[in-house]
Amino acid sequence: MDTGTINLPDFNDVLQAADRIRGEAFRTPLIYDRTASERLERPVYVKPECLQRTGSFKFRGAVNCISQITAREAPGGVVAVSSGNHAQGVAAAAAMFGLPAKIVMPTDAPSAKTDGTLALGAEIVAFDRATDDRYAIVAAIAEKERRVFVSPFDDARVIAGQGTVGLEIAGDAQSAGLDVAAVLAPAGGGGLIAGIGLAITRLLPDAKIYGVEPEGFDDTKRSLAAGRRLGNTKLSGSICDAILTPMPGVLTFALNHKHLAGVFLASDAEAGQAVAHCFKSLKLVVEPGGAVAMAAVLGGQVPKGDGAIVVVLSGGNVDADMFAELVAG
Amino acid sequence: MDTGTINLPDFNDVLQAADRIRGEAFRTPLIYDRTASERLERPVYVKPECLQRTGSFKFRGAVNCISQITAREAPGGVVAVSSGNHAQGVAAAAAMFGLPAKIVMPTDAPSAKTDGTLALGAEIVAFDRATDDRYAIVAAIAEKERRVFVSPFDDARVIAGQGTVGLEIAGDAQSAGLDVAAVLAPAGGGGLIAGIGLAITRLLPDAKIYGVEPEGFDDTKRSLAAGRRLGNTKLSGSICDAILTPMPGVLTFALNHKHLAGVFLASDAEAGQAVAHCFKSLKLVVEPGGAVAMAAVLGGQVPKGDGAIVVVLSGGNVDADMFAELVAG
Repeated sequence: MDTGTINLPDFNDVLQAADRIRGEAFRTPLIYDRTASERLERPVYVKPECLQRTGSFKFRGAVNCISQITAREAPGGVVAVSSGNHAQGVAAAAAMFGLPAKIVMPTDAPSAKTDGTLALGAEIVAFDRATDDRYAIVAAIAEKERRVFVSPFDDARVIAGQGTVGLEIAGDAQSAGLDVAAVLAPAGGGGLIAGIGLAITRLLPDAKIYGVEPEGFDDTKRSLAAGRRLGNTKLSGSICDAILTPMPGVLTFALNHKHLAGVFLASDAEAGQAVAHCFKSLKLVVEPGGAVAMAAVLGGQVPKGDGAIVVVLSGGNVDADMFAELVAG
Repeated sequence: MDTGTINLPDFNDVLQAADRIRGEAFRTPLIYDRTASERLERPVYVKPECLQRTGSFKFRGAVNCISQITAREAPGGVVAVSSGNHAQGVAAAAAMFGLPAKIVMPTDAPSAKTDGTLALGAEIVAFDRATDDRYAIVAAIAEKERRVFVSPFDDARVIAGQGTVGLEIAGDAQSAGLDVAAVLAPAGGGGLIAGIGLAITRLLPDAKIYGVEPEGFDDTKRSLAAGRRLGNTKLSGSICDAILTPMPGVLTFALNHKHLAGVFLASDAEAGQAVAHCFKSLKLVVEPGGAVAMAAVLGGQVPKGDGAIVVVLSGGNVDADMFAELVAG
């Protein structure tokens, strides 16, 4: 899909996004993870975006984007593609601004996500991850129904909105006098980590920023190594449904290429263990794709050193049966 | 057990407790519960003490109490009785101050709680809820081993520590401009709700304060109605293990008699549904006994009216198999 001219968001866009989402998004706390800290022998903090409205950070970007879309631009409302977290973020944000939302969702989306999206008043159109071209479906709907497409990650307003996660991390770290060595966040299309990069490079310039992807879906890692955008060969087949995207975005790749110190990978088994850790030690419900940054930390992937590690737990929209299986571990 | 002369804690003790626990206890946020608010057609907020250090509010009272016990007073350390939340709070607080801790725990305590208590370096002595006199066991250990008894609820320092929950609720509610109509919290021995009462009656004088007990373990409700302390006939047989206590304390009864607008009851089934609600809508891991106030709210027990309802989710130390069963609902 053509994303238009490259208009990279900057730190100022993140500050403006913070103003737009204030009072709507929940300012999630920074929580000390005692168990992980003892294991790593350095301070580990989590940013629990599972507690965010709609159960993931996606609400931030959706509000920042949709608040800037006028009814005149979008006579038919908005359309998005998502495995369920962006879906719910867009559905909630569209409802706030009185715009009808239609979401193109994969057939294997967890029912927690489809149910949540429907409950927020959006319509759902199903697609098959492996065989359908999700973007072609969205483009056809956008044109035919005069809806504005809200990209899950490759949009300056969406990235700036996700960047408020980084703004809050930096603010809380500074208030607590933390020396932050690294910030890790899950990477699907890369919008979250790109937005975080905008805030962290400015406010905590000594902190390294890492994305974490599921094994077998390492498009961002390979793209950064190659210096150009590369896609995944597989499009399904991991429990980390939230972060299985075909390819990095144009904007997210450009930002992540500038800001990221590296990308770690987590297996499904490691993601599951991270979910169990969050259940047992933090009393947080985190979905597998939302737990991959914790998986990388618990797996010892962060280079040794001093300084605190901040782990973004990006979402918690997981079905009860999957969750039960993972925590029973 | 003789609690000595009646020395009721007051609001000033809660303020001092806040100073003592600062930097050690996590200042849990106040989180808007959108789903519950829509169902009740009034704002519902939760105070998630499951996110507290050791997984429950008990750490607050334990730190406030144990920080005031000198090594000279407690040459052998401390001893406590608990189904597991106070156990972990005491174990963590005792370790902070270099005092050995021994905890008398029921044989049916969840392994999440016994494991957590052992991991924090405490020793465990088992008792049978139905047949053993827990307080006689504790008294014998205290005398023989020269340990100071840390009451789970009937101690002015413990109650004042738990009162910091109320202090934070009031502070956050005032910052957010909330009109709080009611605050609900689980009641076992009544220390949490007694402490909350000290803070809320002072800072939010228009808010009503309610305790919530498991059906069949309604000692506080019956005691308040009778105007004197009455015990439970049953001592086990509910999934709400955290709040199955034989009888209200002397101090907690005196405070709760002054401050409480009433006591609601929740069945095990309702507590389980509240656990599932917290999983699905809030992405929080709450144990059954920690969810009874939410159960009362979802069950429509709070008198109709305007104004926000604040629900304390008091703990999250639940075994994976029990949690899986409850969320699968």
